[in-house]
Amino acid sequence: MSENVGFIGLGVMGRPMAKHLLAKGHSVVVFNRSTPAVTELVAAGAIAASSPADVASQASIIITMVPDTPDVEAVIAGPAGILETMATGAVVIDMSSISPVATRRLAALVAARGGTMLDAPVSGGEVGAINATLSIMVGGDSDALARVRPLLECMGNPERIVHVGPEPGAGQTCKICNQIAIGGALAGVSEAFALARKAGVDPARVREALLGGFAASRVLEVHGERMLKHNYVPGFRARLYQKDLRLANEAAAAIGVAIPATAVVSQLLNALVAAGGADLDYSALSTVLFDLAGLDTPKD
Amino acid sequence: MSENVGFIGLGVMGRPMAKHLLAKGHSVVVFNRSTPAVTELVAAGAIAASSPADVASQASIIITMVPDTPDVEAVIAGPAGILETMATGAVVIDMSSISPVATRRLAALVAARGGTMLDAPVSGGEVGAINATLSIMVGGDSDALARVRPLLECMGNPERIVHVGPEPGAGQTCKICNQIAIGGALAGVSEAFALARKAGVDPARVREALLGGFAASRVLEVHGERMLKHNYVPGFRARLYQKDLRLANEAAAAIGVAIPATAVVSQLLNALVAAGGADLDYSALSTVLFDLAGLDTPKD
Repeated sequence: MSENVGFIGLGVMGRPMAKHLLAKGHSVVVFNRSTPAVTELVAAGAIAASSPADVASQASIIITMVPDTPDVEAVIAGPAGILETMATGAVVIDMSSISPVATRRLAALVAARGGTMLDAPVSGGEVGAINATLSIMVGGDSDALARVRPLLECMGNPERIVHVGPEPGAGQTCKICNQIAIGGALAGVSEAFALARKAGVDPARVREALLGGFAASRVLEVHGERMLKHNYVPGFRARLYQKDLRLANEAAAAIGVAIPATAVVSQLLNALVAAGGADLDYSALSTVLFDLAGLDTPKD
Repeated sequence: MSENVGFIGLGVMGRPMAKHLLAKGHSVVVFNRSTPAVTELVAAGAIAASSPADVASQASIIITMVPDTPDVEAVIAGPAGILETMATGAVVIDMSSISPVATRRLAALVAARGGTMLDAPVSGGEVGAINATLSIMVGGDSDALARVRPLLECMGNPERIVHVGPEPGAGQTCKICNQIAIGGALAGVSEAFALARKAGVDPARVREALLGGFAASRVLEVHGERMLKHNYVPGFRARLYQKDLRLANEAAAAIGVAIPATAVVSQLLNALVAAGGADLDYSALSTVLFDLAGLDTPKD
């Protein structure tokens, strides 16, 4: 692929992702609001651009990896944004986790300018970004996905790049579903461990018994072990999970779905953040339930 | 083992379990409130008794497998109950799913009469009982467990017979933890699928994407597939899961633990039963969320 690739957003996730593209021989044009990350990427072989528009004037495939919905809106449709200079036939891949509703609106704007937008949020966190083992959930046109798949495979596990659907926003919806499903499992395991501990039963034995049966889950396996060891070093920070559940609640309100268990998970997470846990791993949600049960719980 | 084994409660679960004991050459004395099941077991080689006390007068290891807490209390401590005739050194194994608090009280009564009580609730449902692949969660004395383990291995998967702890009730607490953990996962998957469907995203693709990552669980795998196919033939009936969550909520109140996500799961299950779903598989909890989102959902 001889096309230039644009990369906007060089944070904890974007930095290692852009580096994987460079390492695989791609020509990468980068933009970031703060300069140290740009300097780091230029040292690794990237070309620095002065704005998202400057990126789009030099690249026909443009990846965005920024914190939240308003950031993606600004980078694509704001002043000096991608839309100002984007070439006809360009592909914008938003790998941020944002609102599926906003994504549909942005995809329409990109399409009106002769481009194609894919939403491709990831899971796997910083470790997945560093090891290029991210799961990638893609919404949008399948031809555009075929064209950019080699780039995605530089950053994610090829077997876990799933085309969720042709509708813009399908990837973001899938990411929200992922966080909802995890939330239920996390609350269930947390409440089970709180009950076991308060009853004087060893939660390690409970975890072992449950892993053999229908309650088995990755959450029980991995987060369950964190809860046993009281090891809440992130991992995935509670503040970021709080943002993802905000997106879930917003999407549910926007499209008309009730998600009452997720509402409880959101409130427990609010309590965790209120107790100073914003930068703990999100599995520290268990500590809220331990505290409510009057259990003594060391926190890292 | 040349001891007679008593078996009280020949319902959907108890009948195949008692048959496995007979098939492995054990001498089994049975009692059941209604007679057809007794006739069936006698045809398979069992000895019929006229009451729990009659069972206990003929057997030194007595298994109980009855519906709920009051049933176990009646069978052990009621008129013509086990305690009236139980021999010193006998072991009572309660394999019902009941209150851990009541279990501790009953275990003390059995101990005061010179016997030992183990609580050994199971998971795996009717299929597990028929195939002798039950998971068995045991609370109580380890020597007593060693003595009866060969019997448990006739009915369950030997690798999934877990000694949860020496305290009476530890097995029942573990069973409740199992149902709590499953409930959270079930609500999470149900809400995720409701959101995906309402957003016009194929939940089958969502399930596939999620199974590769952190949201992976047995519930997503097995119940998720049921939800895709709208196949709610039990399985494990909603009315029984409702009973288990009642036990969870009672235990939480008795020992002082808050289980707010489980509370939501309980209410969704109440709604399922109110809608006529008592005898559907408990994964039909998803249909409550589908209904709340205004989605059309065929039900078996």
